[in-house]
Amino acid sequence: MSTNTESTADAQPEEDIDNLEIETDPEGTVEEDATDTTNEDVDGEANIDGEPAADLTDEQDTSGESIAEASDEADAEDETEEESVLTGPPERFQAAILGGELKNFVSTLRVIVDEAKLTVGSDGITSRAVDPANVAMYDLELSAAAFESYESGDGLLGVNLERFESVLKLAKKDDLVQVSFDTSTYKLLIVIDGVEFTMACIDPDSIRQEPEIPEMELPISLTVEGSQISRAVKAADMVSDHIGFRCVEADKTLFIEAEGDTDDVSLRLTADEYESLDAADGRALFSLDYIKNISKKLPKTDDVTLTFGDQFPMLVDYEIADGECSVAAMVAPRIET
Amino acid sequence: MSTNTESTADAQPEEDIDNLEIETDPEGTVEEDATDTTNEDVDGEANIDGEPAADLTDEQDTSGESIAEASDEADAEDETEEESVLTGPPERFQAAILGGELKNFVSTLRVIVDEAKLTVGSDGITSRAVDPANVAMYDLELSAAAFESYESGDGLLGVNLERFESVLKLAKKDDLVQVSFDTSTYKLLIVIDGVEFTMACIDPDSIRQEPEIPEMELPISLTVEGSQISRAVKAADMVSDHIGFRCVEADKTLFIEAEGDTDDVSLRLTADEYESLDAADGRALFSLDYIKNISKKLPKTDDVTLTFGDQFPMLVDYEIADGECSVAAMVAPRIET
Amino acid sequence: MSTNTESTADAQPEEDIDNLEIETDPEGTVEEDATDTTNEDVDGEANIDGEPAADLTDEQDTSGESIAEASDEADAEDETEEESVLTGPPERFQAAILGGELKNFVSTLRVIVDEAKLTVGSDGITSRAVDPANVAMYDLELSAAAFESYESGDGLLGVNLERFESVLKLAKKDDLVQVSFDTSTYKLLIVIDGVEFTMACIDPDSIRQEPEIPEMELPISLTVEGSQISRAVKAADMVSDHIGFRCVEADKTLFIEAEGDTDDVSLRLTADEYESLDAADGRALFSLDYIKNISKKLPKTDDVTLTFGDQFPMLVDYEIADGECSVAAMVAPRIET
Repeated sequence: MSTNTESTADAQPEEDIDNLEIETDPEGTVEEDATDTTNEDVDGEANIDGEPAADLTDEQDTSGESIAEASDEADAEDETEEESVLTGPPERFQAAILGGELKNFVSTLRVIVDEAKLTVGSDGITSRAVDPANVAMYDLELSAAAFESYESGDGLLGVNLERFESVLKLAKKDDLVQVSFDTSTYKLLIVIDGVEFTMACIDPDSIRQEPEIPEMELPISLTVEGSQISRAVKAADMVSDHIGFRCVEADKTLFIEAEGDTDDVSLRLTADEYESLDAADGRALFSLDYIKNISKKLPKTDDVTLTFGDQFPMLVDYEIADGECSVAAMVAPRIET
Repeated sequence: MSTNTESTADAQPEEDIDNLEIETDPEGTVEEDATDTTNEDVDGEANIDGEPAADLTDEQDTSGESIAEASDEADAEDETEEESVLTGPPERFQAAILGGELKNFVSTLRVIVDEAKLTVGSDGITSRAVDPANVAMYDLELSAAAFESYESGDGLLGVNLERFESVLKLAKKDDLVQVSFDTSTYKLLIVIDGVEFTMACIDPDSIRQEPEIPEMELPISLTVEGSQISRAVKAADMVSDHIGFRCVEADKTLFIEAEGDTDDVSLRLTADEYESLDAADGRALFSLDYIKNISKKLPKTDDVTLTFGDQFPMLVDYEIADGECSVAAMVAPRIET
Repeated sequence: MSTNTESTADAQPEEDIDNLEIETDPEGTVEEDATDTTNEDVDGEANIDGEPAADLTDEQDTSGESIAEASDEADAEDETEEESVLTGPPERFQAAILGGELKNFVSTLRVIVDEAKLTVGSDGITSRAVDPANVAMYDLELSAAAFESYESGDGLLGVNLERFESVLKLAKKDDLVQVSFDTSTYKLLIVIDGVEFTMACIDPDSIRQEPEIPEMELPISLTVEGSQISRAVKAADMVSDHIGFRCVEADKTLFIEAEGDTDDVSLRLTADEYESLDAADGRALFSLDYIKNISKKLPKTDDVTLTFGDQFPMLVDYEIADGECSVAAMVAPRIET
């Protein structure tokens, strides 16, 4: 797992998915990013000569397309498509949904952000959010079919999720929650068992720009019960603040593992334990905090799919709301020196 | 809901029920109280010219009798009646009651005070307590019929409720708790499942003077399940630190509502939701903290009666211990500028 | 319960079981210990002349053998026996046990220490640990019969209990936990439901020396359900930070009691409440913190035996793991002035 520490031009900053970084801070120079990372070295060793801690480009080239290239394309699309589609609030939005489903949707986004832009339309609600450190991203699609009743024009709503989640505490799992948008006051009206909340929306332009997911070839894909991942994360948490996912193609085996100063932990998943595995040799290391937060929201008995490549980001895909809400989380890897 | 902010002579200090103030601090001048309140303005605006934030007298006159007048009468009664009746400890006090009932009695008083004077007699135990800020008052009557066995002379016991509540934690809901008073040591003996506690009483004279409830004409009275109030309070807590109760006579409707900086909440109670309503137009605003603490002790499925008037105190009446303990809480309003 | 406060030579330091003190700090002079205790007087009175707070020797003489003498013997045994028996790690150690049993064993030791030496052998695992203040000691024997499978040579393992307990959180009560020792890496391998932990052992020489239990004649012995003790401890905690155990021989009665500044608590155990009692007149007082921690681990419905003498240490004996693990706790008394 050695990396070329000499090249600087295409340096991939640690803790950043390059394309997200570029999108939200288009003026940021690569040199500055590389310098930042020298203090966040996984092994805690300062990289005093200012050289970047890692260079993913060579490896990315072998897997087809570099993240940087993908992000440039995404950027280009962003400027044309996104600005033309998403403009103002919807002309009408009126929906009713069970408290449990709505809570689950909101609390999943809350894992990484406090405010989010919800794109509403006739098919349902989608939202894409990236955490302030640009390490994790969520992409949620809540289908209109998840609602008891649903009627919506196309539009964008800026929502304070923290406040929304707090309001939803009043709803039990099976309580009907009615949500409608008042176009005159730009406020959401939420009705739970007779109690009416009026909640001001946020200007979507003031919310962190939604990132594009880059095209990446991630050769390793594991489908397994959510509880297996949660269990491994809980174990890793006892010895380290990082967690690694490693696939051994020859053995059709995936290891979830963590190394502490004196103690190690490892969960080996073989054919008996997982649903399916597209195997390839490779390992990716992640900050445990992000994986831990994501794992808290995983369904226990339903399938979850982890997709990753050697030192590449990992996608975590699953469904909630009886299959009517798809959740895709993406986490950037820690680069090992 | 405008108030006369010019007159000073009859200024009603915010957060104080005037009569309680006068009773416990008879030397306090009205001018000083009025000055204090300038920093506690509901809207958070300093009233720099030292003028009182509100004057209830005109409105009180229209409702018959002002609180100040009522309190003067109460004061007069206090000096004659109360001092002659309540003197020393009872000659005997021996009682047994289920843990759940006694815990409920003590924890209700604990909502506003840590120490209380219990007036014991052949009919049962009564206690009246006012919180240190003179905003809330409780009046409890625990009938002798609530006890498994009860025998008591007339007298006054000063009790450290905090310690008493802690001791009662050892009792399960259905455990019999025996309480007796040792006249030689001036201590209470509490026996719970074989464990004997000896708890020193407090000199009743060292405990805050019991206030008199003033006579007030409060035209609005709502009887409703306790859970409805708790639910509205929980909702109000998400947006504000004040809560309003507003009655619209024409609609026979009562609103429990709160306004935050950006968000509002409102529960509308119509004939379907409440048990009964004596309607009149009016609204009273309260500090949420007090209402929240009171609402925590409300019975969930039993009836609770709220009685209030426009910008007047609110009475909260209900029964516990299978109807053998009556609870009356009174809260002073916040005056809106 | 008066004590001779004049003699200094044989002063028994408060909060210390003398023999433990001597064993772990053989150079400590009695004069220094006695001076220390003047600030920890039970009654909170400073002993300004520097005289020792208590002298147990006279009373000990009447009960046969002084603790100091017993400890000298223990010391002598210690130097010969212990050093010859326990040397290095076992040549092999491989065991499987239900999570609940292992958790109980580890968490019991955790009451007083964070690290412990486990003596393993063909019969099972034993451990003896003393808390840093030399006040409490545990002696545990976990029989090989408590394991689902067990194979071990003779040896000594230094274990970080804090970390071990944390790892065991992953195991449910009925999960099989496999523990084996890797002689090449000096690490323990713990497997819980497919998750493998590798945990470094600690050099046993770096762990506090195991004390010997002195021979003491403790004439009072009570056997009672664990819940009775827990209940009395919980009650004592409401009034004091000390707890006394007092036996009245004539009444065949044992009192567990505590005295606070204003309030007292007492649980009287007579023949109806206890299983058996070897009665003698005497009372011993203990720091509540120690007794509280010990009581948390007591079995609720199974028998616990308390053995003590007048102002002597108390032994708390019981069994866990279906009788396959014996637990003996010893606590030094507080000396009353």
